[in-house]
Amino acid sequence: MTSAVAKCSVFIATSLDGFISRTDGSIDWLDEANTRVPKGEDCGYEQFMSTVDALVMGRHTFELARSFGEWPYGHTPVFVLSSRVTSLPGDVPNTVRLSCEEPATLVAQLSAQNMKHLYIDGGVTIQRFLASALIDEVTITRIPILIGSGRPLFGPLSQDVRLEHISTHAFNFGFVQSKYRVIKAPNPLMQPTGHKRPAAD
Amino acid sequence: MTSAVAKCSVFIATSLDGFISRTDGSIDWLDEANTRVPKGEDCGYEQFMSTVDALVMGRHTFELARSFGEWPYGHTPVFVLSSRVTSLPGDVPNTVRLSCEEPATLVAQLSAQNMKHLYIDGGVTIQRFLASALIDEVTITRIPILIGSGRPLFGPLSQDVRLEHISTHAFNFGFVQSKYRVIKAPNPLMQPTGHKRPAAD
Repeated sequence: MTSAVAKCSVFIATSLDGFISRTDGSIDWLDEANTRVPKGEDCGYEQFMSTVDALVMGRHTFELARSFGEWPYGHTPVFVLSSRVTSLPGDVPNTVRLSCEEPATLVAQLSAQNMKHLYIDGGVTIQRFLASALIDEVTITRIPILIGSGRPLFGPLSQDVRLEHISTHAFNFGFVQSKYRVIKAPNPLMQPTGHKRPAAD
Repeated sequence: MTSAVAKCSVFIATSLDGFISRTDGSIDWLDEANTRVPKGEDCGYEQFMSTVDALVMGRHTFELARSFGEWPYGHTPVFVLSSRVTSLPGDVPNTVRLSCEEPATLVAQLSAQNMKHLYIDGGVTIQRFLASALIDEVTITRIPILIGSGRPLFGPLSQDVRLEHISTHAFNFGFVQSKYRVIKAPNPLMQPTGHKRPAAD
């Protein structure tokens, strides 16, 4: 491979009980919490976005983003992962592409296009990338509310994922943002069963 | 009622994905993480315990505490909630009592005994007390690991529970501890359906 593998980051808000939206996809609780955020405070989002070469998201997150009215991602390329949808609506920005690739394949493709930093968004997509050991960094902003049920940020894993805490900031409006680096274990699917176990990177 | 209602607090560690133990109850991941904690650092546990008049826990947590070898709660009274178990093993400390009361009834009973601060422990018990709007304060220490599945700290709720962030401390060994005050909504079970809605306290 001629290019380094792109760094994959998560930057997301959850309820204190770990949900990114209610079961029906609504984020009314987050919108309500955001009314308490001072004007001009974006909890580091713009700074993060300025380092991102492309977004990768599932169809649910894409539909949510479309519902915002104004397209929220400017000129940043967006890759919508879907194995079911075969075409995008005609009115989406031309920065949006559909992909049916597996996470590792897509990351390899985008890395080959010299992309260095991918923003992985949406619960199912994040879980798939985590399960494929592709996530490098996770920034979670905890909203001080329990919603009881909904779409969880995290899901089942075939093995534990260890993280290294990088930083935490508690905002005075009650949000707590923590940034972690994922400690990459050797991919068990790529491990020989014998003695030649590859070292973790 | 002659006594003020006892304050009920949660003080617990969870994985980053919100589990307090694996599905089989094991906390090997927490024990492993604790090996990185410097000697003498207890993340505020002793200070917290010094303010506690009694513990309330479910049978699972009780069995876990018994398995530690040395009984971990000293002379502090412990109430084990169980609707199924009718007697305790003979070798438990005489500070331990079995209770089949509903959370609100038990809190009222202990408050009448002049207890001011109860430590509510164990996933199911915490969830029952939260659902009954009895929890006042929650301290969560997040361990930087995803375990994928297990016994969750939080569970389904009949309505959102809002919290006020009090403080957060990030330890240099990667644990992040946040303390929240529960904002008590009027208990819907106690609300008249008409216009005489009681004010929140």
